[in-house]
Amino acid sequence: MNGARTLLSTLVDEGVEVCFANPGTSEMHFVAALDDVPEMRSVLALFEGVATGAADGYARIADKPAAVLLHLGPGLANGLANLHNARRAHVPMLVVVGDHATYHKRYDAPLESDIEALAGSVSGWVHRTENVADIAADARAAVAAGRSGVVATLILPADVSWNQASIPDAGQSISSTRGAQRDDGAVRAAAEVLRSGARTVILIGGDATRIAGLSAATRIAAATGARVLCETFPTRLQRGAGVPAVDRLGYFAEAAEAQLAGAQHLILAGAASPVSFFAYPGKRSDLVPDGCRVHTLAEYAGAAAALEQLADELAPGTEAAVAPPGRPEMPSGPLTAVSVSAVVGAMLPERAIIVDESNTAGVTLAAGTAGAPAHDVLTLTGGAIGYGMPTAVGAAIAAPDRPVLSLQADGAAMYTVSALWTQAREQLDVTTVILNNGAYDILRIELQRVGAEAATDPGPKARDLLDIGRPTMDFVQLAQGMGVPARRATTAEALAAALAWAFEEPGPHLIEAVIPSLLG
Amino acid sequence: MNGARTLLSTLVDEGVEVCFANPGTSEMHFVAALDDVPEMRSVLALFEGVATGAADGYARIADKPAAVLLHLGPGLANGLANLHNARRAHVPMLVVVGDHATYHKRYDAPLESDIEALAGSVSGWVHRTENVADIAADARAAVAAGRSGVVATLILPADVSWNQASIPDAGQSISSTRGAQRDDGAVRAAAEVLRSGARTVILIGGDATRIAGLSAATRIAAATGARVLCETFPTRLQRGAGVPAVDRLGYFAEAAEAQLAGAQHLILAGAASPVSFFAYPGKRSDLVPDGCRVHTLAEYAGAAAALEQLADELAPGTEAAVAPPGRPEMPSGPLTAVSVSAVVGAMLPERAIIVDESNTAGVTLAAGTAGAPAHDVLTLTGGAIGYGMPTAVGAAIAAPDRPVLSLQADGAAMYTVSALWTQAREQLDVTTVILNNGAYDILRIELQRVGAEAATDPGPKARDLLDIGRPTMDFVQLAQGMGVPARRATTAEALAAALAWAFEEPGPHLIEAVIPSLLG
Repeated sequence: MNGARTLLSTLVDEGVEVCFANPGTSEMHFVAALDDVPEMRSVLALFEGVATGAADGYARIADKPAAVLLHLGPGLANGLANLHNARRAHVPMLVVVGDHATYHKRYDAPLESDIEALAGSVSGWVHRTENVADIAADARAAVAAGRSGVVATLILPADVSWNQASIPDAGQSISSTRGAQRDDGAVRAAAEVLRSGARTVILIGGDATRIAGLSAATRIAAATGARVLCETFPTRLQRGAGVPAVDRLGYFAEAAEAQLAGAQHLILAGAASPVSFFAYPGKRSDLVPDGCRVHTLAEYAGAAAALEQLADELAPGTEAAVAPPGRPEMPSGPLTAVSVSAVVGAMLPERAIIVDESNTAGVTLAAGTAGAPAHDVLTLTGGAIGYGMPTAVGAAIAAPDRPVLSLQADGAAMYTVSALWTQAREQLDVTTVILNNGAYDILRIELQRVGAEAATDPGPKARDLLDIGRPTMDFVQLAQGMGVPARRATTAEALAAALAWAFEEPGPHLIEAVIPSLLG
Repeated sequence: MNGARTLLSTLVDEGVEVCFANPGTSEMHFVAALDDVPEMRSVLALFEGVATGAADGYARIADKPAAVLLHLGPGLANGLANLHNARRAHVPMLVVVGDHATYHKRYDAPLESDIEALAGSVSGWVHRTENVADIAADARAAVAAGRSGVVATLILPADVSWNQASIPDAGQSISSTRGAQRDDGAVRAAAEVLRSGARTVILIGGDATRIAGLSAATRIAAATGARVLCETFPTRLQRGAGVPAVDRLGYFAEAAEAQLAGAQHLILAGAASPVSFFAYPGKRSDLVPDGCRVHTLAEYAGAAAALEQLADELAPGTEAAVAPPGRPEMPSGPLTAVSVSAVVGAMLPERAIIVDESNTAGVTLAAGTAGAPAHDVLTLTGGAIGYGMPTAVGAAIAAPDRPVLSLQADGAAMYTVSALWTQAREQLDVTTVILNNGAYDILRIELQRVGAEAATDPGPKARDLLDIGRPTMDFVQLAQGMGVPARRATTAEALAAALAWAFEEPGPHLIEAVIPSLLG
């Protein structure tokens, strides 16, 4: 059995069942071995950022790692932006980067580059297997590392793939403990704060943004008067009818500061202490109010459990309030960002997964879907755009029985647009709504917010660099060109009809929702 | 004057006139300052790999650096694959990576990452400007470094952009010497080898693949009986009617070994010693024949001059033979890779720039265009696919009076497909021919060549992972969706008609040439 097959068999043993791949020559033995390991599903991406984003989406929904197969340094480089997002999401993932044969590296062949440097920038674990005898043990270690909530990167030289492993693998799974141990002291300290009556915000994130953590946090809030907020970009937020509702901390620092104003204590339950996404001249980076004390109840893993422990202590008889069912009235007339949110809220199917990369166009989405059937929302955890459509691929593969709604801003869509092809190839039940306003609207806003010299009257070159409507992109043609049926909607009625079409038919669909730019 | 404007003014002073950009919030002051520096042309890309590939193409044709503006670590990551190619091409380039404000970095905001690690993997020069007072001097140093034939990366914190430079810049240009000094000893040694009558191959690359170097090399060959070969992937190869013709070293190691067989001496003039692109079980990595002695006449820069010195010594009265004019007969019937090459050779316009990422589909291109009007060919120097269409953008901007023919394999096209949108936006005179065979044909071949266990009869999963025709991609729709007029051709006659249409009309066009896979 060669190294590639040993690797694949070990991964399957360890519960890794899907491999998102964009292979090259150095990965051909891995590719050939796939037929010998039927339990491993292989999913082809036309670009590495699609493969890594898909693995992120898969992990968020499946709660276990997928594998990603990439080709040398440049292949890893193309996947890095979505690995950055995955790192920020604290999801488990196993990245296999094929490399030149061990003895070939010294020749500095054209594709030679520093894989370790790239991998180190996004990975919690990086290892190069130098000998085929080590591949099974290294694979087990990689999966264990990944399961702890990091990107684990295994560098696989081509000769390690093709050499024969002389000794059968008799390894054992390595257990991995994810995240923090129970910390009774942190719970006691938080309980004391919450009992004091001081104005307190509980900022939840990590694993606390699902029902268990949401319920515990809202029970605590009801019993103590604390306010619960969710981190700005949760990995996986459960919400909708029957689920305790929490507000997310605002993206713009001004909004977040208003939400946190007056807090005397901030309890972090799985979330990082709030900071501005970017710096702005004369504005604060640290968003914790002056004089507010920050207490860490739990890191990103273990946060739900810590909140439950705290809720049992502070709110033993309190039920968690949940969002009532309710859908917006169906709007009519020309589409706007607001009416898109209302149509989505009015029509969201049961058990949907929303992958949200709507950016500025999605500011009213939370309101529109607050009472829709219970659903999961995946968000852009690391700020590296181009995550949405790939993540939808992975979410759909992890949950083939659930509809995936991919809400996608036009600018960000173009980073990893070939995800649509993989959606067509795998016939995934993904409905993509492109919110096409023809502009980098977020940057138009930011141009004003950073106080750029010319911001009050940006010049034509600056304006032009944020205008992606010259020429207009036709996402219907782009989608059809990759095998995804598509329609365009310019009115609320047309969007509703298109969503009904997309939700009813199996397989992927794309709807281009043409909306005005926020800034006209 | 703030740091951003100081930077832009300095770059213009140093002769940098074009900036390929995909900016974000941390680059808004740079964007705003563009209106104050009218001499700097800004070209928007929808993906960073387009911007970096465009800067590579620009440098290859303009022989000077363009600037690239990228957004933080993830933006740089998205541009890395084409920076890898640029590094291998030894082109001058200046990459400006915007970063968080200096005081904001410690907060580990979502987009924070290790920019230096990424930049270091592709750059010959990396520097972070910490203070606005240093920006002009740092910019001059960056341009000087870039001009030496490397990717120079300047990391620009947002507050360095927006702070005011209190002291006017009184700096001077830093002169940069590119490449090796004249090495008379190396010339003497090469002359001795060439006079000896031993079987000798001169392998040219670097700056020796333009007319001066080609002429000198072919004069030497004519006078001494040596054979001249060109490196496999030259940065910029001049060829066609009236230009001395050289064969390129084969991509597949077997072909290269056959070309080099029997050589007793190998003289490297701007090229690296030949190695196999990848390792293969039981095959050699080093392609220098046993017993052959290798002599380095010159590194990549200075190679043309060294060859001229050598030619003056060895072949003072010899004229360089040049390729005679001649075009292939126009083929007819269903398109194949061979007939595409013939149609291209029959119709190539005067002074064309061919950007070649045709991969397997382009194996007969050299034969088809050997006697076409003199032209430049740009090739995939670093093996990181997705370089072709972006490089065509940069070449067209560097030479607006020359037609650019972008020969593009279907698989590689999908890495950076949004380059078409920039071509439409800038109305560049680029004719893209997509060679659509619906497969990663190179990998089908490599699957056999690496001797993968199942290679004689690859299984369905392996075959499927190299099949990109499920679903079929429609490049006509993809192009039109990004504003580029497009047609499909399935016969030689239709391709000829489409090329006539594309060459006659100004602005970009795309032709999807549907051809069979080499392996059926």
